Amino acid sequence: MKHITAKEIERMEKVYRLNLINSVTGYKSANLIATKSEKSGINVAVFSSVTHLGSNPALLGFVTRPTQDVSRNTYKNIKENNYFTVNHIQKDMIENAHQTAAKYEEDISEFQHTGLKEEYLDDFFAPYVTQSNIKLGCEYVNEYAIKENNTVLIIGAIKHIYFDEGIQATDGWLRLDDAETVAINGLDGYALPKLLDRFHYARPGQEIKSFFK
Amino acid sequence: MKHITAKEIERMEKVYRLNLINSVTGYKSANLIATKSEKSGINVAVFSSVTHLGSNPALLGFVTRPTQDVSRNTYKNIKENNYFTVNHIQKDMIENAHQTAAKYEEDISEFQHTGLKEEYLDDFFAPYVTQSNIKLGCEYVNEYAIKENNTVLIIGAIKHIYFDEGIQATDGWLRLDDAETVAINGLDGYALPKLLDRFHYARPGQEIKSFFK
Repeated sequence: MKHITAKEIERMEKVYRLNLINSVTGYKSANLIATKSEKSGINVAVFSSVTHLGSNPALLGFVTRPTQDVSRNTYKNIKENNYFTVNHIQKDMIENAHQTAAKYEEDISEFQHTGLKEEYLDDFFAPYVTQSNIKLGCEYVNEYAIKENNTVLIIGAIKHIYFDEGIQATDGWLRLDDAETVAINGLDGYALPKLLDRFHYARPGQEIKSFFK
Repeated sequence: MKHITAKEIERMEKVYRLNLINSVTGYKSANLIATKSEKSGINVAVFSSVTHLGSNPALLGFVTRPTQDVSRNTYKNIKENNYFTVNHIQKDMIENAHQTAAKYEEDISEFQHTGLKEEYLDDFFAPYVTQSNIKLGCEYVNEYAIKENNTVLIIGAIKHIYFDEGIQATDGWLRLDDAETVAINGLDGYALPKLLDRFHYARPGQEIKSFFK
């Protein structure tokens, strides 16, 4: 196996390091976060850091860099208005989603330039992405400044969930490959997962049991 | 589309809510975190919350609940010794990996009961999982208590990276489907992603370009 040390990582060329270190933690979630501001309009951007934080209360987290061009608008709009939506990226949307990472002028909405469409559901302040098969309406709860690299962990409460009924199992679980949700590999790779198996609760001394056998 | 509100989420039966809320944020990374303690031995457990935090310095984060049976040992060992390893879960390891979630007695190593093998590389304190195609040796840097639900975000610095040379592109990127790394869907679903495409940097007014065309 190839072995790379911390010293070698430090000395790497910047883009090479970005590509490597963004790949080594495994697949990342693929979501579009959409926000609205009365002052500066509507914003939608791809995020690969959205993570489940807890189910009761239903919380998610994502990491952003408030000083960075593309994610700065998302951060600013959330701080101004408290609301944002999280919209799954699917197989047929990966080009459109990737295009949101382009550095548009601040007052330009990515919805006008990427083929993504916005919609408003149940009087929620922030727009949803029409094309997404799974969408969440979230409210800002708190943030934690990660001082090690000047990022911020935003905590959001899940207030609304939308999905096609056919993808849900009777026990609540959503089968994401039925929604064609993708996963992100590194900074710029988009992969389509296919379910291998789903297992019952593990217990010492018992063999793992599949839900499907 | 089916619409579920925050009120309905609150009133859900516990397991149904766990299954739903763990699925709605999209795919999660699939890793085994291994730790060692002089007092209580070796521990390995599946984690779906490992996320890239930054490339320079190379940092990752994961969320754990220090009071919860399975992840408590991981937390305790890291606090005691500062070191842990992150090991990708692949297609051929999903049963073994899921078995680590069983509640073994505190002094029992999951390595003895799951078919996973431990190995030590380059004098690093914590064990790696032999079977994993991508492995990281990490050092504890800091933690942030997430007061909204009594979880803790652990920040780790990446000190060592191991992978098969064949999966790396010339620009540093690791092609995770060549390593057969899986992704987690919900609490207990394991999915195998296949790369759809990889895109060059997005710019306003330019069409998205694939790396492969």
